[in-house]
Amino acid sequence: MSPKPEWREPRIIPLDRSIEPQIRAAIDGKAKPPGSLGRVEDLATQLALMWHPKPPHAGKATLLVFAGDHGLTEEGVSQYPSAVTPAMVRTFLAGRASANAFAAAAGVDIRVIDAGVAVDMPDHGKLVQAKIRKGTANAAREPAMTGDEARAALAQGHRLACDAIDAGADIIAIGEMGIGNTASAALLMHRLAPAPLNDCIGVGAGQDEAGMAKKHAALERAAARSGASAPFDVLREFGGLEIVMMTGAIFGAAERRRPVMIDGFIASAAALVAIRMTPAAQDYCIFAHRSAERGHTLMLASLKARPLLELGMRLGEGTGAVLAIPIVRAAARLFTDVAALEDVLTGKI
Amino acid sequence: MSPKPEWREPRIIPLDRSIEPQIRAAIDGKAKPPGSLGRVEDLATQLALMWHPKPPHAGKATLLVFAGDHGLTEEGVSQYPSAVTPAMVRTFLAGRASANAFAAAAGVDIRVIDAGVAVDMPDHGKLVQAKIRKGTANAAREPAMTGDEARAALAQGHRLACDAIDAGADIIAIGEMGIGNTASAALLMHRLAPAPLNDCIGVGAGQDEAGMAKKHAALERAAARSGASAPFDVLREFGGLEIVMMTGAIFGAAERRRPVMIDGFIASAAALVAIRMTPAAQDYCIFAHRSAERGHTLMLASLKARPLLELGMRLGEGTGAVLAIPIVRAAARLFTDVAALEDVLTGKI
Repeated sequence: MSPKPEWREPRIIPLDRSIEPQIRAAIDGKAKPPGSLGRVEDLATQLALMWHPKPPHAGKATLLVFAGDHGLTEEGVSQYPSAVTPAMVRTFLAGRASANAFAAAAGVDIRVIDAGVAVDMPDHGKLVQAKIRKGTANAAREPAMTGDEARAALAQGHRLACDAIDAGADIIAIGEMGIGNTASAALLMHRLAPAPLNDCIGVGAGQDEAGMAKKHAALERAAARSGASAPFDVLREFGGLEIVMMTGAIFGAAERRRPVMIDGFIASAAALVAIRMTPAAQDYCIFAHRSAERGHTLMLASLKARPLLELGMRLGEGTGAVLAIPIVRAAARLFTDVAALEDVLTGKI
Repeated sequence: MSPKPEWREPRIIPLDRSIEPQIRAAIDGKAKPPGSLGRVEDLATQLALMWHPKPPHAGKATLLVFAGDHGLTEEGVSQYPSAVTPAMVRTFLAGRASANAFAAAAGVDIRVIDAGVAVDMPDHGKLVQAKIRKGTANAAREPAMTGDEARAALAQGHRLACDAIDAGADIIAIGEMGIGNTASAALLMHRLAPAPLNDCIGVGAGQDEAGMAKKHAALERAAARSGASAPFDVLREFGGLEIVMMTGAIFGAAERRRPVMIDGFIASAAALVAIRMTPAAQDYCIFAHRSAERGHTLMLASLKARPLLELGMRLGEGTGAVLAIPIVRAAARLFTDVAALEDVLTGKI
């Protein structure tokens, strides 16, 4: 590991929408009826604006899977114990999780990052040791982390995305593993969407009725404990370390003017924080999949975001982000691979 | 070309749903909350039933793009002239159409087939010369083709799908190019969904109001001319040669127990014919994308089919089919790549 990166405000250049008409005209000039590629044309436009004046390129993709534990699990917000987090990290490292399977199918590289797993993780060639602390504090009782810890996690996420791009990734995807993290994400959504707390709480990995009562009670206590409303303060009070690191990764990709695929409910909460902190970050986000987790639709609506896929998944790990990557790769090729209609009709092809 | 294949009734073994519970149990035993991969689990189950007792494999995919012309264009059903069909065939062969771009992005092979383009196509190493006749007859005035021509096209499509599978394809995808073919597909849908003709007609590649009036009038004349309702008779009366060949390709894939990705409105019309002729064919169909073409939603409903993607496209060429292939590849890997939850929790991973 290089020395710990220092956090600084992200410097994100918004997409220059004044050149959108010329990009749309180029797409309309391709050998197909105008508009006939629907949302793929919107995606192609977004990519072209990121890459302008060069044509977009979307080949190599890297999925960053951030793992972290949550003090909120003490309150019974999840039916699974925190021990599942390191067990799943080992599974990622062994290449045997769903995210690995999907990434292998799509030709996507994976990096697994210990952002804040509650136990020591043994060294492993494929594990990025970036632990800020051993799990967050219990946000129902105290701030999940200190301001310095939040800044350190933002800086690490930022650095990891930039490193992946500098190593050749055209597309960054973010995913997570962290028992209890739908609870944390619900609090972030409640304060930053904003939305009534009740509308932000869902079954997560699969809570029963008694579990849901505990989850509601714990999140109500957490919300009552802190009235934080500024994005960074909300993140520090209620965030998970894997979520903060995803927020940092979004900033990194956006600074480098590269697309970042946002997975499901948890990754979208990280995007919500990023966008509330720095609205221009949204220009670089591609929402991949509408989760079956209850609050996700409302969270997406609060960002006026419409994901590419809707397959009823609610796993996280970056699975939804990975499945949407081939669509992004296809969109980028509109500019480079497809002939102009004029050339087709005049027999030049 | 080998000797022309002879048509015979397809021999399709329906999927054995009695083993579905054991497949679902295997998926539920994987390292993820039960049901958390949503529709990908349904897809994985469909693939596993095709491959049983072997685990499914979905790597190599071949897109068959069938091209054909339509006598109905004499009636002004399309704003584009038939000459666009061979021009687009040349574009496919040059690797410069949208389908080529998408296929390159997804690592999908393309074969381009002249099923019935109205002009002679020069020999080209990448073109499969399987022309049945130079375009269909004008279905507003007479049957689009003879029974022998329809059987020959079915046999060719069947053979091409089988050849691709025998050459290693795990997944067949079907797409088409044919000016006027939304008109033909609308007639097939009208008679076989069945549905009121008016609900089957849309703008296709982009008709204006005057063009739509011509399209409606021509299709009403065609429907009034023949009361055919048996699937093969409907196909012969109103089909396009590229559509008939797609129907044959579906039969070929289903006979070989391999998935066939159904593109948009036109390819779905071919699937509708296949399923009405041999209902078991549907077990092997994966509907890829809900087209923006007006009749597609109703056509899908008549088959109780729900496509994987909904991206507002209406191009055809197999573009929607190709975009959904990575999801199929990911689904198949659930069985082979993902660890059992028990192994994760007991530390065996």
